[in-house]
Amino acid sequence: MGGSPSAADGSLLTTLVPSQTPTQLDALFDPRSVAVIGASANPGKWGHELSRIVLAGQHRRRVYLVNRNGGEILGQSVYRTLADLPEAPEAALIVVPASSFEEALDGALERGARVIVGMTSGFGEIGEEGRQRERAIAARVRQAGAMLLGPNCIGVHDATAEFNAAPYLDLPVGEIAFISQSGGLAEEIARYLREYGLGYSRFVSVGNQTDLTVAALVRACAVHRHTSLIILYVEDFLDGREVFDAVHEAGLAGRPVVVLSAPASEPVRRAAQSHTGSLATAGEVIELACQAAGAFLVSTPRQVAEAAHALLSPARARGRRVALLGDTGGFVVVGAGAVTAEGLEIPEFSEELRSRLTAELSPLASCANPIDLVTTASSAHWAAVAEHVLASDEVDALLLVGGFGVYVSYGVEDDAQAIAAAERIAEQAWRTGKPVVVSTLASTSSGALALRDRRVPVYRDIESGARAVRLLCDDRDPASGIPPLPPAAGPSGADEATYFGARALLASYGIAFPEAVEVSGLEEALAAASRLGFPVALKALGLLHKSDAGGVVLGLRDEGELGRAFAELEARLAPPSYSLERMAGVGEGGIELIVGARQDPRFGPVLLVGTGGLYAEILRDARLVFAPADPARAERALRSLRGAPLLLGARGRPRLDLAAAAVAAAALSRLAAERPDLADIEVNPLLVLREGAVALDARVIRATAPELSAPIGDNVRPGPQAGAEGGH
Amino acid sequence: MGGSPSAADGSLLTTLVPSQTPTQLDALFDPRSVAVIGASANPGKWGHELSRIVLAGQHRRRVYLVNRNGGEILGQSVYRTLADLPEAPEAALIVVPASSFEEALDGALERGARVIVGMTSGFGEIGEEGRQRERAIAARVRQAGAMLLGPNCIGVHDATAEFNAAPYLDLPVGEIAFISQSGGLAEEIARYLREYGLGYSRFVSVGNQTDLTVAALVRACAVHRHTSLIILYVEDFLDGREVFDAVHEAGLAGRPVVVLSAPASEPVRRAAQSHTGSLATAGEVIELACQAAGAFLVSTPRQVAEAAHALLSPARARGRRVALLGDTGGFVVVGAGAVTAEGLEIPEFSEELRSRLTAELSPLASCANPIDLVTTASSAHWAAVAEHVLASDEVDALLLVGGFGVYVSYGVEDDAQAIAAAERIAEQAWRTGKPVVVSTLASTSSGALALRDRRVPVYRDIESGARAVRLLCDDRDPASGIPPLPPAAGPSGADEATYFGARALLASYGIAFPEAVEVSGLEEALAAASRLGFPVALKALGLLHKSDAGGVVLGLRDEGELGRAFAELEARLAPPSYSLERMAGVGEGGIELIVGARQDPRFGPVLLVGTGGLYAEILRDARLVFAPADPARAERALRSLRGAPLLLGARGRPRLDLAAAAVAAAALSRLAAERPDLADIEVNPLLVLREGAVALDARVIRATAPELSAPIGDNVRPGPQAGAEGGH
Repeated sequence: MGGSPSAADGSLLTTLVPSQTPTQLDALFDPRSVAVIGASANPGKWGHELSRIVLAGQHRRRVYLVNRNGGEILGQSVYRTLADLPEAPEAALIVVPASSFEEALDGALERGARVIVGMTSGFGEIGEEGRQRERAIAARVRQAGAMLLGPNCIGVHDATAEFNAAPYLDLPVGEIAFISQSGGLAEEIARYLREYGLGYSRFVSVGNQTDLTVAALVRACAVHRHTSLIILYVEDFLDGREVFDAVHEAGLAGRPVVVLSAPASEPVRRAAQSHTGSLATAGEVIELACQAAGAFLVSTPRQVAEAAHALLSPARARGRRVALLGDTGGFVVVGAGAVTAEGLEIPEFSEELRSRLTAELSPLASCANPIDLVTTASSAHWAAVAEHVLASDEVDALLLVGGFGVYVSYGVEDDAQAIAAAERIAEQAWRTGKPVVVSTLASTSSGALALRDRRVPVYRDIESGARAVRLLCDDRDPASGIPPLPPAAGPSGADEATYFGARALLASYGIAFPEAVEVSGLEEALAAASRLGFPVALKALGLLHKSDAGGVVLGLRDEGELGRAFAELEARLAPPSYSLERMAGVGEGGIELIVGARQDPRFGPVLLVGTGGLYAEILRDARLVFAPADPARAERALRSLRGAPLLLGARGRPRLDLAAAAVAAAALSRLAAERPDLADIEVNPLLVLREGAVALDARVIRATAPELSAPIGDNVRPGPQAGAEGGH
Repeated sequence: MGGSPSAADGSLLTTLVPSQTPTQLDALFDPRSVAVIGASANPGKWGHELSRIVLAGQHRRRVYLVNRNGGEILGQSVYRTLADLPEAPEAALIVVPASSFEEALDGALERGARVIVGMTSGFGEIGEEGRQRERAIAARVRQAGAMLLGPNCIGVHDATAEFNAAPYLDLPVGEIAFISQSGGLAEEIARYLREYGLGYSRFVSVGNQTDLTVAALVRACAVHRHTSLIILYVEDFLDGREVFDAVHEAGLAGRPVVVLSAPASEPVRRAAQSHTGSLATAGEVIELACQAAGAFLVSTPRQVAEAAHALLSPARARGRRVALLGDTGGFVVVGAGAVTAEGLEIPEFSEELRSRLTAELSPLASCANPIDLVTTASSAHWAAVAEHVLASDEVDALLLVGGFGVYVSYGVEDDAQAIAAAERIAEQAWRTGKPVVVSTLASTSSGALALRDRRVPVYRDIESGARAVRLLCDDRDPASGIPPLPPAAGPSGADEATYFGARALLASYGIAFPEAVEVSGLEEALAAASRLGFPVALKALGLLHKSDAGGVVLGLRDEGELGRAFAELEARLAPPSYSLERMAGVGEGGIELIVGARQDPRFGPVLLVGTGGLYAEILRDARLVFAPADPARAERALRSLRGAPLLLGARGRPRLDLAAAAVAAAALSRLAAERPDLADIEVNPLLVLREGAVALDARVIRATAPELSAPIGDNVRPGPQAGAEGGH
C-alpha cells in the first residue's frame, strides 16, 4: 500500500526500490557467509574492528576477509580478491575508501553476493555528485538482483543471530529492533534501555537508503521472531507513506513501534540537512503518520527507553480513568498533578469501593482516589489496594507512586514480603488485563525488580510513570492505517489557477458553491444581480490577497448599493474582472471553516481542516488528515477541533450540518490525492449551514519547481496567506 | 505589602500572625538552648530519635531532655518538668501526644521558651475541632510573645547551625533552604539533589501554619548567609500575596525561589485536602504569583533539582538566542528539537562567525548553528567553539549536547585535557556573563565534574539541558512584585447586582458604557429610542443567561423594527423590564474582549482579560493579572494574548485603542481590589474601537458563604457562564 508521494522531489524518490519480501532480508541479518572487503591488520582501523566483531560469529557462519595486500588478520588468512573466495559470500561488507567503492561493489556483485552493506561514506550526504553516484550504484545492485544497505551506514547487528557488523557500538542484547539514521543515538538509547534491563535484538543503520529503505527494514523486523518492539530514528522518511504503512503492519503483527523524532523547526532542518543530507518532515505530519499507523512518537532518547519499557508490558487500557496509589501525601499530590497533566482522569471512587479499601487500611489512609496509604503502609497494603481497585469497573489503569519496595531498606520488611506483594499486583494486572505502572524511589529494590520481571513497568520518576500510563491508555482514534493513493489524474482543461477555474474543478468533485457570474462592467453586474436575486456579493478578481485588500463587498441589497460598491472597487483597484455572487446562508448562523490540502514532499497529499474566520485563524485551531480521507475520517477530524462545539450547537446555537462539511472536506482531499500536480488547494471559508455546506472561496496553486530544501512545516498550517484568492 | 485576601475563608486567615522580623527566627534555626519535651528512652519512638539528633548538636547549644518519668536517655539525665530546667530554653520541641499538647505548651511558655516547635499531630488536619484548638493555641503563644512552628510539623533542620530537629530524614548538606508541607518530598528531592552534588542548608516543615507561616520562613531564609536558593512546597498558601511578596524579596536578595506545585485539578485538591487539610490553589493563579514574584514553577521533584542546579549558576541570559553545540548528528538534531520545544531560538550564524568556527574545526563539521563537531572532535574543539560563540553578539546562551568529557573513557584523551577544556568554557561563561548548560552522556566524567565545580550546570538528559537553558533565558515580564491591596471600600448604595446597578458602579470607576434607559413598556421604549437615536439595541433584563436565551436584539434601525422586537421578546420571555441602548461602534471593526475579576480565596482579587466573542471564548485565550493592575500592566497582559494581533491591526484591519482597553481593565481591577465583597465582576464584551473602549455588558455578583471547599480554578477562567447577565 502507500505509494509514492508527489514527484516534486525528482531525485531519490523516483528511483526507489521494488519492495523486498521481509524474509529476503534474512541474508542481511543472518547471512550464511560474509565477506569483509577492506579488512585491515591495523587495530586503529575500522576494517580491523569490523573483522574482529564479524569473526566473533564464525561459529554461526563462514567469514572471509578480503584485502588486496593479502596476509593475515587476527590469525585468519586474507583473500586478495573476491574471485579467490571458495564460495559466493551471501553478504559483502564494504569498508574501502569512497574512491574504490564501485570497484569493490562490482567485485562483490560479480562473485554473487546477495546483500551489500556499504559502510563507506562520501556519497549523497556530501552533495549532488554523490547522489548521482548513488543512483548508478543502486542501478547496478538491482540489475544484479542484489540488495544494498547504505552507503554511509555504520553497520548492522543481529544479536539473536550473533551477527555483529556494527563496529565500536556497545549495545545490550534484548528484544528491541532499532532502525536508525544515527549510530550515536543507538548507544545513547542503549544506556537508558539498560536502566530497564532492556536491549536490542537488532540494530540497523540505514545510511543513505540508496536501495534498502526504512520501510523494508521495518517489515523485516515486524516478522522477526526475537523482536517484540521496534524503535525508529529517521531523519529522512523518503516515501513516508510506505514507511508508516510498514509501521502499521508491525503494530498489527504485535510489534509496537516507537518513533523518535525532533519536531522539524528551521534549526532542526539545518541540523538534519548537515547530518545526513536529509529533508526533515514537519513534526505535525510525523505526528499524523504515527497516529494513523498506531505508532508512539517521542522526542528524546530517555523517552524512547521509557516508552519501550511501558509498551513491552502487554496490557492496554480501554479508557483513561486512573487509580493513583501512594504512601506519602506529598507524592500523591505531585502524582495527581502529573497524571492530570497527561490528560488522564482520577475519578473519585464509589462508596462501595471506598469501604472495601477502608477495611484493609489504616484509619488515617484516604481511599477516595487518589489513595494515600500513609506512612505506616506495608507492601501487603499496596497489593490489597491493587487487587480491589483493578477488580472494580471504576478504573482502566493503576499508577503507584512513592516508596513501593522501600520498606525492606527501612528494615521493617524482608525481601520475601516485598516480592510476594509484587507477585500479587502483577497477577491481578494480568488477570484483569489492566495496565499497572509503578513509580518508586526504590526502583532497584527487590519488590520493584520482581514487578519488572513480570512486565509491570517500574520507573524512578513520578513524571515518567505518569507518561507511561498515558502511553498505555492510548485512546486515540483507532489506527486506521495510511490510505492508499489513487492513480494520478490529469488537469481538467480549465485554467485551474483562476478563481472560476478553481471553482469549476472543486465543483466537479461535488463541492457546493453559491451561484456566481464573472462580469467586467457595471451593466453586466446589474444584469447578473437581477438574475441571481439580491442580496449579492461583489469580488474583485486577479488580486493576490483580495479580502485583505478590501476587494470583497458583501451583502449588497439593491442596485444602488451594487452600483456604489462597483464604482468604489473600480476606482481603487481597477481589477480585470469581478465575480458577482448570490449571498449564501445569510442570517442562518453558519460557521466558517478552512479546508485545504497540500502536497508534503515526503508524505504526499495532506488535508487540513480548521475553524475559520479571523479569530480562529489567529488562534490556530486545525487538524491534519492524510488524503484521500473518507467522510467518516474527515468528520472525526472536524469533531476533534477545539471549535467543534460551534458546529454541534453550543450556547443555544443551531446544530449545523457537520456531515455536509465532512463530505466537502473528503471531496477536496480526494482531489488532492488524485492531482499531485496541484501544490495547494484551499476553500476558505467553507460556510457550514443548518443544511449543507457552501464554499465561499476557491484557490488552487500548481506545483512549480521541486521544493527539496524548502521548509515544509509551515506550508500545511493555516497562516497569513490563507484565504488569499477570492476571499469572501 | 501583601495584605489579607478576601475574608471568604473566615477560619485561619483572620487569625494570622503579626510578621516577625527575619532575624527573630534565628531562635528557631539556631537556638542557644533547646528542650525536647516528650524525650523517650525507647529507641522505636520519635521522642528518642529526636533526642538523639538534637544531642548531636550539643557542642553548639545546651540541650535539655524532658520526660515526666525522669531517668536517663542516651546517657543524658532527664528533667521531669520544665520548671526543673536551669534556664529558660530558647526553643522547646514538643513531641507529646495530642491529648497533653496544651499542657506541655503552657509549661514551655511559662518557663520562657521563645520558640515552640509543635511536632504533635491531630489538630486542624483532622477537622474543625482541631482547628478550634489551634486557634486557642495560637492565641496563647502570641500572648506570651513567643512563636510556634506547626503543630503537625515534622521538624526543622539547620545544617549550617548543626541544629537537627527533623527525625528520620536523611538530608544532604548544601546551600538550599527547603520550606515544605511534606517531609517525604524533602527526602525525595534530596535524592535528586545529590546527583548534582547539592543539598540543604535548612529544611523546615511548616505543618499547619497555626502561627509561623510560610511567608515568615521565606523571609528568614532570604537573609540567611548560608542559603543561596529556596525551594517551596506548599499545599496551602494561606495569605498567598504575603507568601509571594516574601518570595519576591528573596529574589531581590539574590536567592532565587523554586516553587514545586501540582496544578490543582479536582483530584489534586482531594489529595491535598486529605493530606494536610489544605485548600489547594488553582495552578494558573500559582503560575501568576510565580511570574509576579520572579519565582520558578516546577511540578515534580526531579524538576526541582534540575532547576536548582541551573539557577545556582550565576549567569542569566538577556534574550532567547541559543547556540547549540554537539559532536554527533543525531544528538544535535534531537537537541535542536528539545531547544525549540522550549520556545528558544537557534539563530543561524553570520558568515563571519561561521568562518571563525570553520577555521578551528574538521572540514566535515557544520558551523551554521546548530554546530556539529562530528565524531573526530576533542575537548579542545568544544572549548574553542564555546569561546568564539560566547564572545559573539549573536547568541545569549550556549547548550552543549552529546559526549563532552567522554573522550577520556574512549582512551583518546586524558583527564587533564578534558579539565583544561572545561576550565576554558567556564572561564568564558564567567567573562561574558552568558549561561552555558551542558548535557552529556559522560555527566560524571572528569571534564563534566570540572564544569560543575565551576557552576556550569551539567545534566545527563538532553531535555534536562534544554529546560535548564529555558530557565536561564528567563525573559518573562520583569517580576514587578505583588501589588499592595487598597483599603476595602463599602457598597455604593445602588443595587449593584442588577444590570443598571452594575453599570453605575463600573461607570463610577471610569468605564464607558453606551447610553441606556431602563424601560418597561413599548411606549417608553420608543420615546427613549427617539431620544438616543437609531440604531438601538433592546435587552430583556432579569434573565440569567439572556444572550443565550435570545433576550438581546441588536441593530434595530427604526420604530418598526423596535416594535416587532419588543413584541417578540414580550411574548416569549415576558421580562420585568428592558434596557434600551444606543448601538455603540457600529461598523467600526471593533474587537470584543472579556474583562473580569474574581476573588481567589488565597490570593485575593485577580483580573482576567481575554479575547471575546463566541470563537475566542471556546478557543480560550485569556490572561490573569493580580488586581489592582495599573494600565501598563493590563496592557502587557492584553499584548500577550494570542489574539492580540486583532487589536494591533492584523490583516489590514484597523489598529484599535489598546490603551483605552487597558485603562478600562485596570479600572475594573481597582474596583475588584477595593471591594472584596464582590465575588465576581465582569464586562463581557468590552468593545475596543479605533478610539476608546465601550462596555456592552456589566455583571456583578456579591460574595455569599465562604467557599472553602469549592473548586477555585474554574472560577477564574472564561467559561460557559461568562456573559450571562445583560449580554449584548
